Amino acid sequence: MDELNQQLDFIIELDKLKGVYRQALLKSDKNRYENSAEHSWHISLTAQILHEYAVEKVNISRVMSMLLIHDIVEIDAGDMFAFSDVTDLAEQEDKELAAARRIFGLLPEKQFQTFQLLWIEFENAESIDARFAKAMDRVLPLLQNMRNEGGSWTRHDIAKSQVLERNKYLKGLAPQLWLYVSKQIDLAVKQGWLRDE
Amino acid sequence: MDELNQQLDFIIELDKLKGVYRQALLKSDKNRYENSAEHSWHISLTAQILHEYAVEKVNISRVMSMLLIHDIVEIDAGDMFAFSDVTDLAEQEDKELAAARRIFGLLPEKQFQTFQLLWIEFENAESIDARFAKAMDRVLPLLQNMRNEGGSWTRHDIAKSQVLERNKYLKGLAPQLWLYVSKQIDLAVKQGWLRDE
Repeated sequence: MDELNQQLDFIIELDKLKGVYRQALLKSDKNRYENSAEHSWHISLTAQILHEYAVEKVNISRVMSMLLIHDIVEIDAGDMFAFSDVTDLAEQEDKELAAARRIFGLLPEKQFQTFQLLWIEFENAESIDARFAKAMDRVLPLLQNMRNEGGSWTRHDIAKSQVLERNKYLKGLAPQLWLYVSKQIDLAVKQGWLRDE
Repeated sequence: MDELNQQLDFIIELDKLKGVYRQALLKSDKNRYENSAEHSWHISLTAQILHEYAVEKVNISRVMSMLLIHDIVEIDAGDMFAFSDVTDLAEQEDKELAAARRIFGLLPEKQFQTFQLLWIEFENAESIDARFAKAMDRVLPLLQNMRNEGGSWTRHDIAKSQVLERNKYLKGLAPQLWLYVSKQIDLAVKQGWLRDE
């Protein structure tokens, strides 16, 4: 029962991600902040819907697993806005690495290794699966902001170039999605939701 | 771009599941109600952690997909407490069937068929994958309630026999988990969190 108890402790620990709030606002729920657990659900499904646009072979099962676990480190490290200062982002990386060790470390050794490696692969965008997963994580806030008068972009005075840079993984990997995203970004500039820089 | 626009409409529609609230309370976030989107994330990961306890071969990728989509119908039909009256539950089934048609129907035909079939397979517990997925959906509230002084059980005066019946899929499918669950249920009775019936 020892392994099972470790696994159940991990599963219960996951509850805490529901209390980690992001910058995205949910138009569908009185414009409250989105939490990282429901966001992880949403991008896993987004990946499943859109993976056929990838021009290279994507293992959707691995991508879904990556997306389900990618934000778990935020239980200890908190969420950091995508467009924060570079020094803050570097400090955040250290916090997340320690968090991965502690939280995935609740699991039995074999699962700990599997999850830790999958998380590192995602973080470092080391494979096609990881790059596609990252692209999904980044495209969803764009879709949400476009339907919410610019959402977090407008509140934080974000520039077009920042959003283009952030969505760069789509360019080679899923050109049709990249085309769509580029057009949406132009539209956002026209609407005054992104700075034209 | 037509297919892509259909897919994006579906993806945006999913946001609404974050505003569908369940009976479970989240101890980790000031005891607020849990929503169905974050719940879906949690059970998908729970399935991934626990699927090796299944004594029959489970396709974990299919199970995760089922669990990610299984509550989407609640966007139209709302969440119904697991231990509601039988007549209410029957009425709920009709609402959910219509919801599946409308919401999955936002997708291009091929994906609509895939998702609709996967959802029906889950609903009717038609396969080992579906029964394992259902078992995961049902075991998590038990884990949560056991760590929250009985949680939704206590508030709704639920009996031991109801929780045993609800977790029945574990019995043949994952005996080690069933053993754990049975002991937890006995403990809950002893604590006064479940009626001894």
